[in-house]
Amino acid sequence: MKNSLVGIGVLLGALYAGGAYAVEGKWTPEQLLEHDPQWLRDQGLQLPAGELWSRDGAGLLEAVVKVDGCSAGIVSAAGLVITNHHCAFGILQKHSTPERDLITHGFLAASRAEELPGEGTRATVPHRVSDVTAEILAAVPPGADDLARHRAIERRQKELVAACEAQPHRRCEVAAFDGGVRYLRFENLEYPDLRLVYAPPRAVGEYGGEVDNWSWPRHTGDFALLRIYAGPDGQPAPRAAANVPYQPRHFFPVAKQGVEPGDFVMLAGYPGTTFRSLTAAEMRERAELFFPRRAALYRAWIDRMEAAAARDSGARIALADRIKGLANREKNDRGQLAGIARGRLLDQKEAAEREVLAWAQARPDQQAAVAAQGELARLVTTQRATWEHDFLLDQMRSGPRPLDLALTLVRWAGERAKPDLEREPEYQERNRERLAERVRLDQKRMHLPTEEALLADFLARLAALPPQQAVPAVTELLGGAKDQEGIAAVAHRLLAGSRVADLDERMKMFDEPEAALRARKDPLLDFAFALDRELLRLKEQDDRHKGAISRLRPAWRRAVIAHAGKPVAPDANGTLRVSLAHVQGYSPRDGVEMQPQTTVSGVVEKHTGEEPFNAPAELLRAAPKAPRSRWADPRLKDVPVNFLADADTTGGNSGSPVLNGRGELVGVNFDRVWENVANDFGYDPQVARNVSVDTRYLFWILDTLHGEAARGLFREMGIDRP
Amino acid sequence: MKNSLVGIGVLLGALYAGGAYAVEGKWTPEQLLEHDPQWLRDQGLQLPAGELWSRDGAGLLEAVVKVDGCSAGIVSAAGLVITNHHCAFGILQKHSTPERDLITHGFLAASRAEELPGEGTRATVPHRVSDVTAEILAAVPPGADDLARHRAIERRQKELVAACEAQPHRRCEVAAFDGGVRYLRFENLEYPDLRLVYAPPRAVGEYGGEVDNWSWPRHTGDFALLRIYAGPDGQPAPRAAANVPYQPRHFFPVAKQGVEPGDFVMLAGYPGTTFRSLTAAEMRERAELFFPRRAALYRAWIDRMEAAAARDSGARIALADRIKGLANREKNDRGQLAGIARGRLLDQKEAAEREVLAWAQARPDQQAAVAAQGELARLVTTQRATWEHDFLLDQMRSGPRPLDLALTLVRWAGERAKPDLEREPEYQERNRERLAERVRLDQKRMHLPTEEALLADFLARLAALPPQQAVPAVTELLGGAKDQEGIAAVAHRLLAGSRVADLDERMKMFDEPEAALRARKDPLLDFAFALDRELLRLKEQDDRHKGAISRLRPAWRRAVIAHAGKPVAPDANGTLRVSLAHVQGYSPRDGVEMQPQTTVSGVVEKHTGEEPFNAPAELLRAAPKAPRSRWADPRLKDVPVNFLADADTTGGNSGSPVLNGRGELVGVNFDRVWENVANDFGYDPQVARNVSVDTRYLFWILDTLHGEAARGLFREMGIDRP
Repeated sequence: MKNSLVGIGVLLGALYAGGAYAVEGKWTPEQLLEHDPQWLRDQGLQLPAGELWSRDGAGLLEAVVKVDGCSAGIVSAAGLVITNHHCAFGILQKHSTPERDLITHGFLAASRAEELPGEGTRATVPHRVSDVTAEILAAVPPGADDLARHRAIERRQKELVAACEAQPHRRCEVAAFDGGVRYLRFENLEYPDLRLVYAPPRAVGEYGGEVDNWSWPRHTGDFALLRIYAGPDGQPAPRAAANVPYQPRHFFPVAKQGVEPGDFVMLAGYPGTTFRSLTAAEMRERAELFFPRRAALYRAWIDRMEAAAARDSGARIALADRIKGLANREKNDRGQLAGIARGRLLDQKEAAEREVLAWAQARPDQQAAVAAQGELARLVTTQRATWEHDFLLDQMRSGPRPLDLALTLVRWAGERAKPDLEREPEYQERNRERLAERVRLDQKRMHLPTEEALLADFLARLAALPPQQAVPAVTELLGGAKDQEGIAAVAHRLLAGSRVADLDERMKMFDEPEAALRARKDPLLDFAFALDRELLRLKEQDDRHKGAISRLRPAWRRAVIAHAGKPVAPDANGTLRVSLAHVQGYSPRDGVEMQPQTTVSGVVEKHTGEEPFNAPAELLRAAPKAPRSRWADPRLKDVPVNFLADADTTGGNSGSPVLNGRGELVGVNFDRVWENVANDFGYDPQVARNVSVDTRYLFWILDTLHGEAARGLFREMGIDRP
Repeated sequence: MKNSLVGIGVLLGALYAGGAYAVEGKWTPEQLLEHDPQWLRDQGLQLPAGELWSRDGAGLLEAVVKVDGCSAGIVSAAGLVITNHHCAFGILQKHSTPERDLITHGFLAASRAEELPGEGTRATVPHRVSDVTAEILAAVPPGADDLARHRAIERRQKELVAACEAQPHRRCEVAAFDGGVRYLRFENLEYPDLRLVYAPPRAVGEYGGEVDNWSWPRHTGDFALLRIYAGPDGQPAPRAAANVPYQPRHFFPVAKQGVEPGDFVMLAGYPGTTFRSLTAAEMRERAELFFPRRAALYRAWIDRMEAAAARDSGARIALADRIKGLANREKNDRGQLAGIARGRLLDQKEAAEREVLAWAQARPDQQAAVAAQGELARLVTTQRATWEHDFLLDQMRSGPRPLDLALTLVRWAGERAKPDLEREPEYQERNRERLAERVRLDQKRMHLPTEEALLADFLARLAALPPQQAVPAVTELLGGAKDQEGIAAVAHRLLAGSRVADLDERMKMFDEPEAALRARKDPLLDFAFALDRELLRLKEQDDRHKGAISRLRPAWRRAVIAHAGKPVAPDANGTLRVSLAHVQGYSPRDGVEMQPQTTVSGVVEKHTGEEPFNAPAELLRAAPKAPRSRWADPRLKDVPVNFLADADTTGGNSGSPVLNGRGELVGVNFDRVWENVANDFGYDPQVARNVSVDTRYLFWILDTLHGEAARGLFREMGIDRP
């Protein structure tokens, strides 16, 4: 027996050694077409790449949609969309009241008529992509400085977007790849009538909560179903009674068979931002300043919000998604720091950079890259002089809501006075409606006593800046008040005297020109006007910096790619990407092996009866029968819950459909493991693992918690309920 | 590839399913002889059981010795003994000063002459065992009540011990099995001259410290080497220059080949106390009162001691072993609670008990058992009335040292006035020397400002008891002082006015009769005299309870064993036991698989440069070469550090030699995993895992940190250094 065990150990070791499967790369759909078809087949892709995507954007990947900051996948011919529970959380929150608490109890529409409007939430469906690099670069006048350079590029981007959106129902964007190596224009169709079909109870959809967030083993039913509605003509249309379910050109059929360890999976979505193209000096700024400072700031704010939520159920509902959002970023920041330290990523980055630099220095055609690398490093040094000041002002929008709203109103009034193409992109007419929505919907996300505490905290932080970084508007506002009590009194006076937090009044303000806003003598608006001067100064500084980056990064990046001598996926930038992966576990540390799948019995095992481990009673009752249910995995002898794969993901990939080699849905991505958070800086095959919820858990939950009521959904997804 | 992976998964599952190897039982050596020899061979034992032990006690297990509260194994013909670093910690502490900090730096004797005396530490070698059940039970007079019953049994035990110790060099004890089902007399040889040969630096021997204690994966070099010295005639003798290394009849040769997953191992030692024979009601008292209360009390004391240790290196050294001891028990208490909750052990125990009870109720010959079970439950109820009072008084000896010393002096004076056989066992003449030693050596374990803080804390707890449980001596002492400051002033007055903490004075007190102690008017002694009245009352209550237990437990226990219908190992009671086990990992929870071995690269992985993860620089330098060293495991491709097996162990098994099927040393046991702490209440094959240090790590450390200087030790253990 001993010998056979050893034999198996050796064999397993050989199969898995060094994460044999791991493939780095958030590939653009175009890059899929450039890969060797045989290599794609070897990975496990059974469809020709051309069925996924064609040069003009037609293909199965059209079924990958963007929903707010998340990814999602169309899974029926009637526009049914699967994404994460945490991506649909905002809709649940908007429809929840202490009396009808959908956050806690979840929601299943009894019929299509009952599906809940996702006010302000839109589905963006990819349609066409074109390379606009030449047009963008041609816009930069000869001899332009960095500020002029940035403004010229931004203007040309706006023009290209405007031309694209002149067509009906289009939502377009121009995205820079690796700082400007390439610019692509994405022409999307935007469906503003998106409705909630199903969300599980929070105790399923958020099982494990912040405790388990970014970790493994995981037992979270992080799924939700939405439906895209279109006008009777099938085109995007605002919410209306006459609207009908959207009929997509493509959707992902649900796989009849679930995943197993070793299986190929493909993950498609809209990853937000990664930092792999940063230089070592830029990465050091993230590691030494940005992540630690932001984690500390958010922790302080979360603590205040959680204290309020614990006292008051109104506050709990109002603050829920802000707490979730901040906590998620705070834990991410700590994960980045832990991962950077653990993987000695700074040292690695520096070593790799030295290598490319030495290579480039020896090549006459790479001298621009050498110079760019030096200049990028100097930019970081320059930024350090006012780093704390700039950081705090940047974070202002994540703190007290009324201040953010006042700043939005003030800037909106200012920008509105300009011709559309001269405005900042987010204040262009094309964004008026969503800006108004946000200004309106924030009403449900405010809790005034907490806003006041956050404002006082924020003012105190600004007041504590060193004299040479002091913010004049704050100095003037505080008038010498330096102690906690004095600052709190100022915060109270600002909010008590302001009408910004009054919904009707605020919506009036939204339509008022600057003079009218000033005439109100609203203390919070007045403070926002004073602060906005500083913010505009900061914006100019940022624009100049962006201009420099657009000039320097591509030069350096081209050298890095040339030195690599093989295809390199660009940094994530919120555009559609595909990652090729395999289901597999990992070893987080010596002596521990994480299994690639978890099961319903693990949900029961974690149940304590207290948040965040308070599984529904029906689930606990049904769990012992799970092994005999039709959703059980024969190998696991239980219903699978979550699984790991080595996909290359980041924030924004939440809700990404996970597909098998035939393009069928097997899961929904929702997280990364803790050891993989710093993945944003570099892909480590040993620990690069994303976390998905298995579709079989969705079906078991639908069956267990909702029974007959879910029959329509099963039928729609082509599944015969037993 | 997929299919072969699945096939392997299934195969592994089948091999390991349900902890296929697991064998519950801390077997007495006699029980080894009762097992079916073929079954023992099937387990993996290659020696005949008779070579391990014979009816008169002769055999290889003679090489398993007791060192203070630990187990240890003789590993050379010259009396070399291997045990845990934490078992030799007291010796290191006694020889450490801030200038010569052996705790931090470790110790390797350059020659036998340099070996450090382990003052007060003795090696107890097993010699002979006899069944004295009949003699004990015959001592109980007919119609005796429980108090008389206990006193008669205790007296007969003392007589049997005295008769045994009338032979030279004997140290004897009479132990009850399962509350009195059997009584055995153990005749041991006690060697008072035991010396420290080797202890690694604390950063190896205690790597991971309290953070890793009771957990896995583990990377602790928890080993130390001692040597037993004998008089020139080979018999036990007090420390003397003429003494020579002890020549044992048996010792454990070091295995030439290390362990692998699946290997049989056998673990021998002196497990202290388990609670498997408790009734459900008794177990509930442990779970609901004892463990939570003790954990909270020790946590408070540890916090005070750690605060002092952080401020002052003298305090750090003085308090080190007390902090370790309390912290170990505190974490154990929490582990028991977690394990009892996790395994729903109370429910299980109640269900099992109901089954035995129903079985017994139906049998006329089991009516005594039925009655005993009921009475045992009622005893628990009775105890609850004064539980908090009794608990605090019981814990008194673990708190401020000077109070414990004063109580010892007072009781010793009282007991000394009685004939020897009428004294409490620990105050008999046979214990005079070790009592004096403890009273003397405690001088190094005191830190007066901390003692004062602990005393004030303890008085405050006593003062807070409900009125009906108030301790008169405390009420009188405090004279109405109830607030923190008032109580602190009393504590200060007691200690400042007392000479108990003065070594010379205390040793005089040790020889003074009660009248002389009283004449001193020492405030701490006076308080101890007052308190001792309460303690003696409590002792009488305890003795009565013990009498009841000796009457009831055996009746119930015999029913449990008869109902089981197979051999049942008795609860641990500090006597020699053997556990049969196999090297294997475990799954602590869904999705996680613990590997059964850790490696040197895991030590490096955990290194942070800060306690308790501050590996020595030489270790870190040598680690990359470990895979090529002769101590590397070919399968792991690294030097193994710790390993798991499913041995049935508890406290007292620390330092137990771990042997292969040929009786050769492969490791030293030092801990259990967290999920297995509640093992004291029941053996769960899924998580019953003990943690041992692999002898190959000892050798690699000796080689790496000490090189040439360790050559003699290698030779002595029969290992050719490369």
